[in-house]
Amino acid sequence: MRKITSISIIGTGNVAFHLGNALFEKGVIIEQVYGRNQQEASVLARSWNCKTTFKLSEINSDLVLVCVSDNAIIPLISQLPSDVNVAYTSGAVGLLNFHERKNVGVFYPLQTFSKSKSVKISEVPFLIEADSVEFAEDLFELAWKISDNLIFANSEDRKNYHLAAVFINNFTNHLIYQAKNHLDKNTLNWKLLLPLLTETIDKIKTIDPFDAQTGPARRKDLETIRSHEVLLEGIPKEIYTLITKSIIDTYHQNDKL
Amino acid sequence: MRKITSISIIGTGNVAFHLGNALFEKGVIIEQVYGRNQQEASVLARSWNCKTTFKLSEINSDLVLVCVSDNAIIPLISQLPSDVNVAYTSGAVGLLNFHERKNVGVFYPLQTFSKSKSVKISEVPFLIEADSVEFAEDLFELAWKISDNLIFANSEDRKNYHLAAVFINNFTNHLIYQAKNHLDKNTLNWKLLLPLLTETIDKIKTIDPFDAQTGPARRKDLETIRSHEVLLEGIPKEIYTLITKSIIDTYHQNDKL
Repeated sequence: MRKITSISIIGTGNVAFHLGNALFEKGVIIEQVYGRNQQEASVLARSWNCKTTFKLSEINSDLVLVCVSDNAIIPLISQLPSDVNVAYTSGAVGLLNFHERKNVGVFYPLQTFSKSKSVKISEVPFLIEADSVEFAEDLFELAWKISDNLIFANSEDRKNYHLAAVFINNFTNHLIYQAKNHLDKNTLNWKLLLPLLTETIDKIKTIDPFDAQTGPARRKDLETIRSHEVLLEGIPKEIYTLITKSIIDTYHQNDKL
Repeated sequence: MRKITSISIIGTGNVAFHLGNALFEKGVIIEQVYGRNQQEASVLARSWNCKTTFKLSEINSDLVLVCVSDNAIIPLISQLPSDVNVAYTSGAVGLLNFHERKNVGVFYPLQTFSKSKSVKISEVPFLIEADSVEFAEDLFELAWKISDNLIFANSEDRKNYHLAAVFINNFTNHLIYQAKNHLDKNTLNWKLLLPLLTETIDKIKTIDPFDAQTGPARRKDLETIRSHEVLLEGIPKEIYTLITKSIIDTYHQNDKL
């Protein structure tokens, strides 16, 4: 296969936005953008100096990069010409097998993206997989233009990384939301927690998270735990109780009764 | 009251270690250290150029700083001479009232400490409370030597900050531990998650955590969620299911059925 020098992008969300920008800035030609949301597609097309399209069956670039929700991947790829090369950006969808179609691959950035926040794309790990060694190498070469942190990973490994990423990012972000929400409700200043948040992550870079654990559950301080639980209700209380149990189980499973 | 120029420290754990070091480096004289663990007390005493003691009833400094687990605070303070000034470092224990004793206060650093990890103490918020305005001001002045980030907070506010800190630090750290554990079990490289971890926190500094949320639960992508759940078992699976439910409730409560 020839090298990938031009692409089309399907999707206008956070991943399409950041990958498209990074590739465009490295000189990759973006030929067409397809999106359900025509306005967002137009904005991206203008910024990448290309056109929007409605006609998936007429897309013809070196690669079509499919940056959409997992459940939309198969229906969209099925509408593309059968001889076009495609890669999708999902962490969870195993390598797809369309019988009539060759050169199907995965181009998965292990990162959280929001349009309003820039990301150091050069440090983002890209997990690459494809139905042939040659196409995998082409995708690797494309990813290499924007990141120094590439690995080939099969579908199972990728799914496990994605699951870990859900804990590391999605779930921690939600806990931070819950903490902020609790402080907001009590008209307290959430910014006071920012040094703690920074240190939480700094710590993990030098100390194993098992050893970094502190707090009432780590000490099995049941009195403090109960005094916290009375301040909570509903799902936040359930979360408090379950994670506390998990920490106590992790550190005190061999305690004598 | 005269200013606090000399202190004694009760406790040899992470908080005693970091607060003692910071105060010592700012010229505060540490007179005595008391700890259940005599070896750790000796190490700290040598580094602060002071003595260890077993006799709580004979301690006599401008302030005794009590850096111990919540359930040990009352028994230890009760052994001190009744005219000595004391402050303890707990987030959860309300301002204590010992009838015969005056000048009782709280000197609570809103941070996670481990001995093996240095901390920018100057950025750590200290929450100060005391049984008199004068003593609160003395404690404020002492904290000012080591941090620029001080607030007076009553017991209820302090407890709410502490609860939020448990979510922000203890719980997120445990989720990171769970993620690492999952990758370790599958012989995958946990270091690949570090850019995501850094970005998770960077993001929160500029985007509200409500808006920063991404991932399958945010999109209510039930298929991906189920495919993750089959990879998990036991408490990690319960955690996955509960936090996922919490995220879906947060973002999709008004979805039409």
